[in-house]
Amino acid sequence: MPTVAALIIGNEILTGKVQETNVALLARELFARGVDLRRVVVCRDDVRVIAEDVNDLRRRHDWVVTSGGVGPTHDDVTLAAVARAFGRELVRSRELEEMIRRLVGDRLEEGHLRMSVVPDGAELVTCPGVTWPVVLVDNVFVMPGLPKVFRIELPAVSERIGASTPFVSRAIFTLCRETEIAPLLDRIVAEHTTVEIGSYPVTDEDYRVRLTFDGIDPEAIDRAVEALLAVLPTEKIVQR
Amino acid sequence: MPTVAALIIGNEILTGKVQETNVALLARELFARGVDLRRVVVCRDDVRVIAEDVNDLRRRHDWVVTSGGVGPTHDDVTLAAVARAFGRELVRSRELEEMIRRLVGDRLEEGHLRMSVVPDGAELVTCPGVTWPVVLVDNVFVMPGLPKVFRIELPAVSERIGASTPFVSRAIFTLCRETEIAPLLDRIVAEHTTVEIGSYPVTDEDYRVRLTFDGIDPEAIDRAVEALLAVLPTEKIVQR
Repeated sequence: MPTVAALIIGNEILTGKVQETNVALLARELFARGVDLRRVVVCRDDVRVIAEDVNDLRRRHDWVVTSGGVGPTHDDVTLAAVARAFGRELVRSRELEEMIRRLVGDRLEEGHLRMSVVPDGAELVTCPGVTWPVVLVDNVFVMPGLPKVFRIELPAVSERIGASTPFVSRAIFTLCRETEIAPLLDRIVAEHTTVEIGSYPVTDEDYRVRLTFDGIDPEAIDRAVEALLAVLPTEKIVQR
Repeated sequence: MPTVAALIIGNEILTGKVQETNVALLARELFARGVDLRRVVVCRDDVRVIAEDVNDLRRRHDWVVTSGGVGPTHDDVTLAAVARAFGRELVRSRELEEMIRRLVGDRLEEGHLRMSVVPDGAELVTCPGVTWPVVLVDNVFVMPGLPKVFRIELPAVSERIGASTPFVSRAIFTLCRETEIAPLLDRIVAEHTTVEIGSYPVTDEDYRVRLTFDGIDPEAIDRAVEALLAVLPTEKIVQR
């Protein structure tokens, strides 16, 4: 099962100006493909910090997906940081330059051409329906942070990462409090070791706790769900 | 200026079941107090992984705030992980136990008492208006992940962290594209080195780019804002 780490680059997130949303998108996409998103780091727009994080994450995971810091302005330093992480130069990609010239035509400005500069040896990854390529350096995908563009380009990334046995997830919603079900859950968890069981209390819903059962074996998941349903008070199970 | 790192514990976030929202809350609160949130890590519900992250983050920052993995069920392992990080035992806090007994009275279950167990030597931090204490071990605050509770308990954390010269932030909203303003921005950035300038393109808004000017010196910020306004085409500035 491939492992992935995400590196979110953005002072705007660390100062609370922007609510980060790309992680949830990426997480859902990978989960559905049986790919394990193991870790997310949010770091500052600082070349040295980003380069260190890229190196740490790429050595410990099969793939790294970065989000943010891509564009023509001074605070877009991700590609420079990735180049530094790999000890490579930044070079102009003729392929990207031609693409940009085709796209903007007469409106061409210096800022546009800045976006054709990538780490030496970078690959440009596309897939059907995705017009702008994602920059891939070894096992590091460099994605834009703008959610609309991140979403559009995500299929190119997930296609390249591939898929494993898809994860399956079932859920039980209950009116029980966590304190009430904790001892019951302990037993189920001990008896169903191939199933990842999560317990999530909520507020302001028509249930109190959402219990999730994840794994790659649907029958094992069904058995764990049935085992818990058998011991939960029927009137406290919320049908959804 | 105090530095803070956040450690978000949660398989539910890494599998895309839940959209993380506590980071934005924490980030805004700290920014307003002039405290620097420098890094966020999202990790799995795994005692060993959490303990390693706690140790790494607490050594490199003045404070660490963890979110999630607190409660009575099997997947609530944050306090065990923090104990492990500090090489301490988990012990029952008589203060917490009494508090729980007062709160739940006759409804007391084994699950409730599980929540009185904390790392040896932990401090219970409260502030006026916050009824449930936050567990503090050395420089590590252990916060619940449930957003409603996280929000309620946050003042106890930020009061304890204290405040520095508050950050000030101004913004310009413009119809210019980033490619158009990148060269102008380079000059402003070079001439206003005490101001942190960010450029954030958006989609589906009545402007194209939000330019932010952050720092602790309001006059320096005003000068940078005025300098950029002087070179931006007037008709491309969006009043807000």
